[in-house]
Amino acid sequence: MDSKTSVILEAAKKRFAHYGISKTTMNEIATDIGMSKASLYYYFPDKEKIFIAVVEQDIAEFVNTIESLISKPSKPSFKLRKYVSYRNELLVRLLNLAKVETLNTPEVFNPVYDDLKANFYNKERQLIQRILQIGIDEQAFIKFPADSYSDLFLSSMIGLRATILAREKPSETTFEKIEHQTRLLADLFLKAIKAEEK
Amino acid sequence: MDSKTSVILEAAKKRFAHYGISKTTMNEIATDIGMSKASLYYYFPDKEKIFIAVVEQDIAEFVNTIESLISKPSKPSFKLRKYVSYRNELLVRLLNLAKVETLNTPEVFNPVYDDLKANFYNKERQLIQRILQIGIDEQAFIKFPADSYSDLFLSSMIGLRATILAREKPSETTFEKIEHQTRLLADLFLKAIKAEEK
Repeated sequence: MDSKTSVILEAAKKRFAHYGISKTTMNEIATDIGMSKASLYYYFPDKEKIFIAVVEQDIAEFVNTIESLISKPSKPSFKLRKYVSYRNELLVRLLNLAKVETLNTPEVFNPVYDDLKANFYNKERQLIQRILQIGIDEQAFIKFPADSYSDLFLSSMIGLRATILAREKPSETTFEKIEHQTRLLADLFLKAIKAEEK
Repeated sequence: MDSKTSVILEAAKKRFAHYGISKTTMNEIATDIGMSKASLYYYFPDKEKIFIAVVEQDIAEFVNTIESLISKPSKPSFKLRKYVSYRNELLVRLLNLAKVETLNTPEVFNPVYDDLKANFYNKERQLIQRILQIGIDEQAFIKFPADSYSDLFLSSMIGLRATILAREKPSETTFEKIEHQTRLLADLFLKAIKAEEK
């Protein structure tokens, strides 16, 4: 990433976090960094693309963290639990970044983010599948189709979170509840797939 | 329910299923049953309230089915699996009724339906909790807090379904996938809460 781009993303990040996406304009971002509007448009066609780039940075960082978690020598059950808690941290960051009050806002369902969401889903699915496969290979888990189980686990986790956020505004308490319920889901899931002791 | 109300709901149901909520007007419903617009408004203030009444009928029927399922002598694990499949059937019916293409449409997120959704969620949560409690009492399941587990199970199931419907248009194949994945969720959940054989 060239330095201009990272300056733009840094400024946009602050704007988004303070005022939300819908209240941020390209003009304001340009002014914040003393850039002409024309120059800003040379880098990004609209604020949604800037937002996507900001989120992609966060996601890339998350993926790196998980890659290193996967490669370290630890129990697969530990890896999965850690995954869940890193994921929750990421989503708190993204929610603060987007400054959306609930997940039911039109901003979140803007189709311009569909690719971003689909890509992230697929990436997560692969990461979880790798963790599950390690557990199967090490005979810590019973044998099962790791691809469809990773889909199930990820969708349930997304759903848990979305269901809670559809009923409660984001707050410390809400995030604690999400953390608690997703951890419980991981515990139940791990119990169901645990290999019999020999 | 008086007979006028049920005539209105029957007519509205057909309209909704053919044209969707957004394309149905109060005028059309009145015309369909040879009622004046003024009379229709005497019964219902707007089409959303009619839609809610139609959905409430379906939900009441579902709740009756589950009540009778709960009271019959069968294994708690059977009850929970049956619950999941009745629930999927209900949701296919409701989706056809609303004639919405995906769950990401503004219609679905119209705040006028918030109470309906919250009530249904609470009702379902209670029903699932009763099934889980029966299993705990009969020592078919291990001991656990039935209220928070029912919340977890229900949210995960809602989430599974929503995640699939966010990515795939409603179709036979999509519904089969939802059926498959929710059944897998129930299996894993049941495996995790199953009491040890004695």
